[in-house]
Order: sequence, then structure tokens, then C-alpha cells
Amino acid sequence: MSKEIPYKIYLEEHEMPKQWYNVRADMKNKPAPLLNPGTKQPMTLEELEHVFCTELAKQELDDTTPYIDIPQEIQDFYKMYRPSPLVRAYCLEKKLGTPAKIYYKFEGNNTSGSHKLNSAIAQAYYAKKQGLKGVTTETGAGQWGTALSMACSYFDLDCKVYMVKCSYEQKPFRREVMRTYGASVTPSPSMETEVGKKILLEHPGTTGSLGCAISEAVEAATTTEGYRYVLGSVLSQVLLHQTVIGLETKIAMDKYDIKPDIIIGCAGGGSNLGGLISPFVGEKLRGENDYQIIAVEPASCPSLTRGKYAYDFCDTGKVCPLAKMYTLGSGFIPSANHAGGLRYHGMSSVLSQLYDDGYMEARSVEQTAVFAAAEQFARVEGILPAPESSHAIKVAIDEALKCKETGEEKTILFGLTGTGYFDMYAYESFHNGTMSDYIPTDEDLKPGFDSLPKMD
Amino acid sequence: MSKEIPYKIYLEEHEMPKQWYNVRADMKNKPAPLLNPGTKQPMTLEELEHVFCTELAKQELDDTTPYIDIPQEIQDFYKMYRPSPLVRAYCLEKKLGTPAKIYYKFEGNNTSGSHKLNSAIAQAYYAKKQGLKGVTTETGAGQWGTALSMACSYFDLDCKVYMVKCSYEQKPFRREVMRTYGASVTPSPSMETEVGKKILLEHPGTTGSLGCAISEAVEAATTTEGYRYVLGSVLSQVLLHQTVIGLETKIAMDKYDIKPDIIIGCAGGGSNLGGLISPFVGEKLRGENDYQIIAVEPASCPSLTRGKYAYDFCDTGKVCPLAKMYTLGSGFIPSANHAGGLRYHGMSSVLSQLYDDGYMEARSVEQTAVFAAAEQFARVEGILPAPESSHAIKVAIDEALKCKETGEEKTILFGLTGTGYFDMYAYESFHNGTMSDYIPTDEDLKPGFDSLPKMD
Repeated sequence: MSKEIPYKIYLEEHEMPKQWYNVRADMKNKPAPLLNPGTKQPMTLEELEHVFCTELAKQELDDTTPYIDIPQEIQDFYKMYRPSPLVRAYCLEKKLGTPAKIYYKFEGNNTSGSHKLNSAIAQAYYAKKQGLKGVTTETGAGQWGTALSMACSYFDLDCKVYMVKCSYEQKPFRREVMRTYGASVTPSPSMETEVGKKILLEHPGTTGSLGCAISEAVEAATTTEGYRYVLGSVLSQVLLHQTVIGLETKIAMDKYDIKPDIIIGCAGGGSNLGGLISPFVGEKLRGENDYQIIAVEPASCPSLTRGKYAYDFCDTGKVCPLAKMYTLGSGFIPSANHAGGLRYHGMSSVLSQLYDDGYMEARSVEQTAVFAAAEQFARVEGILPAPESSHAIKVAIDEALKCKETGEEKTILFGLTGTGYFDMYAYESFHNGTMSDYIPTDEDLKPGFDSLPKMD
Repeated sequence: MSKEIPYKIYLEEHEMPKQWYNVRADMKNKPAPLLNPGTKQPMTLEELEHVFCTELAKQELDDTTPYIDIPQEIQDFYKMYRPSPLVRAYCLEKKLGTPAKIYYKFEGNNTSGSHKLNSAIAQAYYAKKQGLKGVTTETGAGQWGTALSMACSYFDLDCKVYMVKCSYEQKPFRREVMRTYGASVTPSPSMETEVGKKILLEHPGTTGSLGCAISEAVEAATTTEGYRYVLGSVLSQVLLHQTVIGLETKIAMDKYDIKPDIIIGCAGGGSNLGGLISPFVGEKLRGENDYQIIAVEPASCPSLTRGKYAYDFCDTGKVCPLAKMYTLGSGFIPSANHAGGLRYHGMSSVLSQLYDDGYMEARSVEQTAVFAAAEQFARVEGILPAPESSHAIKVAIDEALKCKETGEEKTILFGLTGTGYFDMYAYESFHNGTMSDYIPTDEDLKPGFDSLPKMD
């Protein structure tokens, strides 16, 4: 007889993962290396540690070590807000009338409101250990900046956040959370950096962009003694830290003999999806088990479903290394979608390679359908989801309704990355019927593709 | 050897309480009965069920049954977001350098952001069971309204919220959360009720008050077929439902052989404090155990520390029954303190009687000191606390620092009722140094005391 599944499965402290899992070690086709944008040669450790903390640069380059110890200090911090619950969505199943069994791993129950804290604390730890004074970063919607502020506050590190100006002005709450944790928050573009001054001279009225904020943060890090730059997604080191999500999920599921048939996650830069699926993909890569894996992205920013697999700049300022990824081109300007965390032109190199090799599929979904799914979920499961997370909810509901038609009792697992408390303007526009469903035409995508670097 | 205490203690589902505890049953001096404001006679069941659901009216009057079964449907809903964690504040202890052991019961990890959901779901359940179409209520800061919206959505009940107009305009996020859960939210005073029209005629520019919103909600409930009025605090039925907080805490502590020396909670209408302390006070009343219990209130609205123990109106509109309580008088206008949930002129009759009988003490604290404690707590414990909850944090830190001086290893327990995500304007004014510390003079208190009803 199988054990009765509780509404929420929490691991005990002694069951929590003590190592991260590096899925690259099990990949036959390794993700392509980061390239120096000038020489087009693979970035060396020496080059990377100019920008990143040394230990993190090593993790970025390491595609052979399958398990990497989680330092005790990070494990201790994880205990403050982890394990996150694996929730059986009994109420949603009942509402849908589906024979499918739905589970979600909920990462929103911490003050940063999302999974971002898992990597922020790791990056802050290595920065502190290296004896640095502080770190710099950029933030758009603010989830990453909030998470990093919390992590830096814990380790008593300076935290300098360049926040896209329009978010700085429109999202004062996020800004104040960061200030509560002692971070300095600068609207970008600013007069504090050369690149910021240049952009302000050329475009005096600009409200900023993520690409510009990245450039400012990198410049601030590389020109200030004792500082390094940190990033919340896309990089392989970030995916590595985020595997704590998937590892906890796997342990909890194994404990109750649950095997997911379908695993679903939203994908912006790939940090959450990569973290959730890594241990499952590892089994798939080693031929031990099979899972259907679905990456969900906004129809307005469809890097996997409509992008090209090519080397590209990670930032619009073109100061970062080149990464091979599914991309719309760094010159692509995403529309003002409310899922700010998914408005990125590219995708993690690890996920791009897995997708190209057929280990996962991808779907794009439209905004109002996503908010309708979010509201349906909120009303029965209680949790008010972030717009980003709601992309995964939408596809999970779609799959559960397919099971209702076919009668299949599939087990569906999805990642619920965060809460939407700071996204109520988006919900308001959904309620008021003013939300749009922009899908770029092929013509709209052209400038992005034209911006791809020539690699000859 | 005592067991090692984890950072967070979660009960398993089968350990969760199946009954609420009615502390009135163990009180020798019962709380004074509610009185009909016209006849000054105790309210009968018949009178109460005109306004409240019948089962809730019975719970309001029942001061003899010690344990009351939690209906299975409510237990199922509790499983969606409970048990809430009992957290050992290791990081705060370390930061303070105190030998005290600090625990907090954290009620903020649900979308309503606070403990209010514990009673909202119970009240919605009884309304549904009675075959009602819907319920009405008022909300100020919006935590109660949000919780009730969630509960009504779950049971498919109409939910009509009268929201104090200035909050409606200044807190659009809370309003949108309620709308997400399908509630109708009306700025109060409105033209929908007689009392609203009357007030708007007399004071055309008014931004509303809680007292006025209560009057509108009661009128709407009593003049609309199939509706009743529900309330989020003060009433004994609410305290009863909130004992799930204290019961879970007690079970978790007993499991690890922990006995608190001091128990601390913030007190507005008393719902959280009453819920947390009830099982402990029960032992105190029965002479089985002793605990120091501290109610914390804002210096700007000091009902316990500077109020009178007297019969008073529960609302400024004077339409509700009279309750005997520690009160500043329904005519007292609290200043614009940021802890909206603590800006109530009175206090639960149960807590008032316990306080009068010496079973608990009370302290008042000033606003900027509260926010300083909140920020200190957030930085080490990760959680961004609500201003209300931070009153308890302030006194817990004070007590822990006393232990540091004396070397005593006291065990301190406090209630962390909710999160401050929707209170960032308050944090902003703290950061900007524009927060004030208003304490009413005796002269300021006089109009409130003068408004107390003559009881002859």
C-alpha cells in the first residue's frame, strides 16, 4: 500500500541536500564555453576572476565534477527558509476535475519572494570568503536585487544594486525592501559610471534597460577595489546553486514513491528551470529514467521557441563574455510584459544545449491566459503567484486538462518560483481588461537576429 | 540528553490540532457579556444571529465548553497553509549575543500575509454551512479583508468588503489582491448604505474611518437577504479560532521539551495574542504551570496601559453590542500609526479580563523603536515583518538583552503575526527619518473617555 500523501511535504533538516548537483558532468554534449568577446577564444579563469569571485569563476568553468559540497555556512542559511514545501495541489486537482496528480515546489516563502535567494546566498558567501568588500549587480523587477541584499546583509557585505530606472520609480516597494537590508540602490542609467554618463548624454530621457544596468554594474565592480559583479540567472554557476530546488524535490518524491511524468518550469534566463530539472535530467542523461520536461516562456519573448542557437552577447552593452544559447539577439527589445523576470533575450547555455539535444521541449504562452491561470490557481490553492511562475501554472493546468480528456492519471510537477505581492499593478490591468497579448512578428524579431555577432 | 532543536519545527499533519481551545471555560472570572446597546441587557442568541452566523453567535456566547471540534473542511483548508513554523531565532540570538533562547511562531507564510486567515476560513465555513449567500465586513489596512476574500473564494461565497477610503486609495495592492480572490471592495463611506450617505452628506470630503466602515458593513449585512456580518478580531469567537496558533506552538514545544518563560504578542483587538497565549494561560488558570505573558501595544494607542476597564461601543457608529473591555473610548481617534492593525480603541473582553485579573502584563512601545527592531530582525532572520508584529519583536529583543545583562538563559516565545510586504511606505518613512513618535497626552485621551456610554 502506498503512503498517504500529505498536502505539503517538508524534509527534515538532516534530509536536506549537502551537495549541489552539476548536471554538466553528465552531459555528453557539454554546453559551449563562454568566449572572450575580443579574441573569440574561451574565457580563462584569469579573465573571469577579473569580473567574478574566484570560486564562482571556477564553478562556471567546471563541467566535469558531478557533486559540489554546499559550504556549511550556506547550509545554515538555507535552514532559515528551506526546505521549501513540495505541495500536492489537491484543491486544484479537484477544481479541474482531473485524474492527474499535481505537485508544485513552492519557492516563494521567503522575504525575497522567490528562488533567487538560493544563489544569492552562495554568491555572497564566496565573495565574503575571498575577503571582498562588496558586490555589484543589476536588477529589473527587483527579485534578484532583493535576494542579493538579504544575502549581503547576512554576511555583512556591501551591496550595490543598479535598478532599471523605470522599475526604480514604478516599484518603490521593492526598492525599500532592498534599503531595509542595507543595500544602496541606484537608478540606472546613472552619472556614477562612464557607461551611464555616455548613455544619459545620448538619450537624456531614457528610463533605462537591463542591458544598461548590467553594463553599469560590471563597470562599477571592475573599477572599484574589492568588488566583484554577481548575476542572478543565465550563468552555469547560478544553475548549480539552484539545483537545491530539484534535489529537495527529488528526495521528497522518492520518500513517498512519487515519480513525475511531466516536469514544468518557467524559463527566463533559466535559473529556476535548470535548478528544478537538473537531478531529473541527470537520470535521463544516464539512461536511468525518463521524464517529459517542458520549459514555458512568454509568447512575447520566445527565445527557445523562436530564437536561434548561436553565440551572442549576454548584455546589450556588449561588455560581458559571449555565450552560445538560444537567443533572440541582444538587440531584441522585449515588449513590456508583466513577467519582468522572463524578459531576457537569451537562455542559459546548459538549458540551450539540453533543448538542442532533445532532452526538453518548450512552449510559449500568452499573457492574459497566464493571468487567468494565476487567478484560478490563487483562488483554490491560496497562494498568489508571481507572473513568471504563472507561466508554469498555465501549462500544468493545460496538461491536467488533457489528462481529464484522456483519463490518464499522469503525475505533473511544476516549479512555483515566487509570489506576486509586488506585481499587483499587473493583476490590476488584468482585472481592468487593459492587459495586452503582444506577439512579435517575424519582422519584429529581425533587428535582434541582425544584432548577433559575426563568428566566422 | 535533550534533542537538538532545528531552525524550524513543523508539525506533521497528524499532529495538527483537531479542536480549538476555549480559554473562557477555565476562567473563574468570566469575561463580561456583550450587552444590547438599547436595553443594556446581555445579548441573546436571537439578537446576535440577526447580525452573525448562528453557529458563530453560539461560539460567542459559549464560555463553558473547553474544547470545540474543528470541522473537517476547516482542517483541510488549514493543511493548505498550516502548520505554521515555530522558528528558533538562532541568528537573532547570535546577533544580540544573548544567552536567551528565542522562538517565534510565524503566521505570515500565506497570501493574506497574516494569522487572520485562521478565523476567516472558520467564519466563511459556518456562513456557507448555514446556506448564506455571502458575508460583509470592513477592512482598514486590508489584512483581514484579504484573508476573508481568500476564505470566501474557497467556499464560493460572496464577499463584500467596505474598505476605509484612504486605505482604498493609498493601498491599491491590497485592494487588487482582494479583487483577485473575487471580493467586491467598496471605498467607505459609500453611497450604497444609508449610514454612508448620511456621513457623506455631513462630511463631503471625509476619507473614512474604521468605525464608519463597520457601520456600513453591518447595515449591508442586516438589510440584505442571505448575508451576515463577520469581524476579524476583538470577538471571543475569533480568539477561539486563533487558538490554533497557540495549540500548534504548544505541541511543537512539548515535542522538544521546551518551556517558554516569557510569551510575547502584539495586541490590537487581541486576536493574535489571545490565540497564541490561550493554551498557556489555560495551564496558568488551572495552576499547572506559570508563564510571564506580555501584551505589546503602540504608545499611540495604549488601550491596556492607559485605558479604562469599562463597557464601551465596539464601533464609532455605535450600532454594535456593548463590550466590557480596556478601552480608550470609541470617540478616541488614534493617530496615523503605521501599524494599522493595532489602531483600535478597545481590546478583546477575554484578554481584558485576564489582564485585569493579573494573568498578563502590558507594555507600550514607540513607533521608531519598533521599526528599528523590525529592521534588525529582518537583516538576521530574513523575514520582513509587519509593523504590527514588530511590536512583539521589539519587546522580545528588550527581554533578550536583559538576559544578556543578567546572564539568565530564559526561553522567550513571541508571535510573528505577519509580513510587511504591503507596508513599504512605512519602512520608507523610517528610512527617510520622517517617522514620528506621537504619544497622546492625558488631554488627548479625554474626548475618548468622555465618549464612554453611561451605564448607571
